[in-house]
Amino acid sequence: MLGIAYDQLARDLMQRLDRLALYSECSTQLTRRYLTPQHRGAIGQLSSWMSDAGMSVRLDEAANLVGRLEGRQPDLPALMLGSHIDTVPDGGRYDGALGIVLPLVCATYLQRAGWQPCYPLEVTAFGDEEGARFQSTYLGSRAMAGTLDRAVLEASDSDGISLRGALRDFGLAPERLAHAARRPGELAAYVEVHIEQGPVLEAEDLPVGIVSAIAGATRLAITVSGAAGHAGTVPMALRKDALAAAAEVILFIEQYCATEGLVGTVGQLAVAPGAVNVIPGAATFSVDIRAGDDAAREQAVNTIRATLEPIAARRGVSFDVRQTHSARSVACDQRLSARLAGAVRACGHPVKHLPSGAGHDAAAMAALVPSAMLFVRCAKGISHHPDEAISGADAAAAARVLIHFLCHFDPRHIGDWAST
Amino acid sequence: MLGIAYDQLARDLMQRLDRLALYSECSTQLTRRYLTPQHRGAIGQLSSWMSDAGMSVRLDEAANLVGRLEGRQPDLPALMLGSHIDTVPDGGRYDGALGIVLPLVCATYLQRAGWQPCYPLEVTAFGDEEGARFQSTYLGSRAMAGTLDRAVLEASDSDGISLRGALRDFGLAPERLAHAARRPGELAAYVEVHIEQGPVLEAEDLPVGIVSAIAGATRLAITVSGAAGHAGTVPMALRKDALAAAAEVILFIEQYCATEGLVGTVGQLAVAPGAVNVIPGAATFSVDIRAGDDAAREQAVNTIRATLEPIAARRGVSFDVRQTHSARSVACDQRLSARLAGAVRACGHPVKHLPSGAGHDAAAMAALVPSAMLFVRCAKGISHHPDEAISGADAAAAARVLIHFLCHFDPRHIGDWAST
Repeated sequence: MLGIAYDQLARDLMQRLDRLALYSECSTQLTRRYLTPQHRGAIGQLSSWMSDAGMSVRLDEAANLVGRLEGRQPDLPALMLGSHIDTVPDGGRYDGALGIVLPLVCATYLQRAGWQPCYPLEVTAFGDEEGARFQSTYLGSRAMAGTLDRAVLEASDSDGISLRGALRDFGLAPERLAHAARRPGELAAYVEVHIEQGPVLEAEDLPVGIVSAIAGATRLAITVSGAAGHAGTVPMALRKDALAAAAEVILFIEQYCATEGLVGTVGQLAVAPGAVNVIPGAATFSVDIRAGDDAAREQAVNTIRATLEPIAARRGVSFDVRQTHSARSVACDQRLSARLAGAVRACGHPVKHLPSGAGHDAAAMAALVPSAMLFVRCAKGISHHPDEAISGADAAAAARVLIHFLCHFDPRHIGDWAST
Repeated sequence: MLGIAYDQLARDLMQRLDRLALYSECSTQLTRRYLTPQHRGAIGQLSSWMSDAGMSVRLDEAANLVGRLEGRQPDLPALMLGSHIDTVPDGGRYDGALGIVLPLVCATYLQRAGWQPCYPLEVTAFGDEEGARFQSTYLGSRAMAGTLDRAVLEASDSDGISLRGALRDFGLAPERLAHAARRPGELAAYVEVHIEQGPVLEAEDLPVGIVSAIAGATRLAITVSGAAGHAGTVPMALRKDALAAAAEVILFIEQYCATEGLVGTVGQLAVAPGAVNVIPGAATFSVDIRAGDDAAREQAVNTIRATLEPIAARRGVSFDVRQTHSARSVACDQRLSARLAGAVRACGHPVKHLPSGAGHDAAAMAALVPSAMLFVRCAKGISHHPDEAISGADAAAAARVLIHFLCHFDPRHIGDWAST
C-alpha cells in the first residue's frame, strides 16, 4: 500500500526515539518532567520533525505541542493523534514518546508517498501526563479537553515552584491556561498509540491490541491496630499481631482479584514498631484496585471492606480504611475502536481487545471527543523503567496498522463506521 | 511466719521501685543504660539500701553491685539473688529492678525479724542485661559467670565510646574485667525474681510462676525476590508479587507455631519499590522463633525453610534465607526449681511451670551455678514500656514465696533437695 518501506520506517522511528531520549534531566537515566529545559529541548526536536512532515507547529497555553497537516478539505474536523512527552523519573523511551513519534514518522512517509488526507491531521505532544512534577496527572490533555480546574495553577513541585510560576518561566501566560481547551467541533476523534506497559500481548504473541477501556481505580490506605508485645513471651493464642492480620488481607485481595478477573495490588506496607523481637502492634498498607468495569471494581472494594470485619473480630485487631483515590473507568469509543480493529485485521493480525490498567491521555481526551487506543507489545511488560523496549518488527506492524487506519479514516463517516 | 507485715513490705517495695525509677537519662521516660551517670546514681541508692539490710557492699570489675549478708556459717557457699539494673530505652520500672529490690526488702524485713541465714546471702544488681548501650546482652552476668570474651571490650556505643573506655570512665580497670568471674565453689545457687513480661500468669489468674527454661531463639532474615510491575497492567496470573509471597510465609509461621506450641514472630517487613501503584518486586522480613525445647525450635526452622520451596515454585519468586542469631535454650535447675515450687505451694498458690520467652541473667548464671527463676504476674503482659506494672498484692505474694524459700534453703542440701 503506497509503496512504503516499513523496515526503513521502523529503523527511522527507533532512531528518533533514541534521539528524543537524550533530552533528559540526568545523563545516566531518562527523566523529563513538565516545563523543564529538557521538555523545551524535546519540543524543539519534535517541532523540527513536524515541520519536516509538512506540518504547521504551535505550542498551546498548557505547553502542549501541536503539529497540523491541513487536509484536502480544510473545513473538516481534524483527527488528532498523540501522547505525552514527559516521563517518570528514570523511565523508558517508549512510554508516551511512541505515540507522538510514530504518527509523525507515518505522516512523513505518507507525505513522501504523495498522500494527503481529506481531513486535517494533528499530532500532539502533551506536556504532562505522568504528574511526576506537580503530582497532578493528565495536565496537558485535561487542559486541551477543557476539564482542568484553575486551582491546579497553585500546585507546586518539590522545589516549591508553582505550576503558575513554571508556566510563566516557560514563557507562557498562566492566566490564559483555559485557552488550551479545544472546541468540540474542531476535532473528530483522538487516537493514541502506546506501549502496553503490561505482559498480555507478549503472552499471546501479538504485536498490537485494541484498548477496550481505561480502567477505573480505587486506592485505599488501611491501618491495622493490634497490640505490640514481646516476641518471646506472648503465646500465639494471646497475640493481636497487626502484620499477620494484614497478611491475611493481602492474600484475600490477591485471590479475589485472580478469581474475579480484575487487578489488586498491595504495593506499600509499613510495620510498627518494626523490631525483630517485637510483635507488630500496627501495620499500614495501600490497596490499589483496578477494573475496566466500574461495578466490578466497586464490588471488589466492598468485598474487601466486608472481609475485614471477621478478621478483626477473630484476631482482636481493628482496621481503619481511608479511600485515597477513586476514578471511574473510561470506555474507548466503540466505533472508532472498530475502525482501528479493522486496520489490525487488514494488516493480518488477530484482533485482541484488552483493558488498559494504566491511565492515558485518551482517558482525559474522551471527555472532549471520541477516543481510541492502539497498544503495542513491549518486552516482558516492563515500563517506567530503563529496560522498557519494543521490537523493530512490532514498530513496523504498528506503523502499518496506523497508516491503514489513516488512509481509511473519514471524519464525515464518524456517525456511520463500518468494518473496512 | 516470723511475723512479717507483708502489706507494709509490699508498699515499701513499690516505693523503692518508684524511687529507683528516678535514676533515668531522661526526665520524661525511664532509660538507664550501663555505665552512665544514672547507673552510678542507682548504684548509690542500692548501696544505701544494702547497708540498711546489714550487707557489706562491693562493686565488681564489671560494675555489678554485690551486697553480701554473712551467714551463721560463713564457710558455706552463698545463695545469690539478683537481676539487672539497666533498662531498655523508655522501659518500665519492674523489669530487672524487681529482682534486686524485692530480695533487698525481704532481707531487710528478715533482719528486723531477727532472722539470720546459716548461709551467706548475696544480692546482685547486674550492670547490663539488656545490651541497650553496647548491643551485647548479659554483660554483667556473663562477666560474673566467667563466660565473657575479652573482645567485647572493643564494642562501642552509638557515640563511639568503647566498653573499655566506658569502664575506665566509670573508675574501673578494664584489664581486670576477667576478675569479675566468681569461682564455682563460692556460690551454691542463683535465684532470679522477674516480672513475666508476658500474659500467661494473668490469663491463668496466678500471682507467680516457676520458669522451666529460658527459651532458645533462632532469628532469620528472609528476602523474597519477585518481579516489580505496573499495578494496573499486569494480570494477577502473570505476577511475581514478593509481598504476597511473604504474606503466605507469615501466615504459615503463625499457624505452625500456634499448632506446635512455640512462638514465632515476623516483626520487621520492608517492601521495594514500595509505591502504591507498583507490584512489590522484593520484600525483606525478619523471623524470630523461640522454644524452651531446642529440638522443637530446630524442627520449626527446618519446616519454615522447607515450606519456602513450594511457595517459590508456585509463585515464580525466590527466597534468600540468612540466619542472624541462634541461641540454645537454658533449662532451669530442676531441684532448685522444685524448692521454689515448694515455697509457692506452701504459700497457698497453685504451681505453674512456664518457659521464659525472654532472656534473663539466669541464662548466663546457669553456666556457673544451679539457677532458677520466679516469675511475677505483670499487667496485660506489657513490658519494655512505661505501662509495665505489677500489683501490690502480687508483690506481697512474691515476697512471701521468696521469704519461705530463703528460710528453708540450705546449701548443704543442694544435692538432696526435697519438697518442703
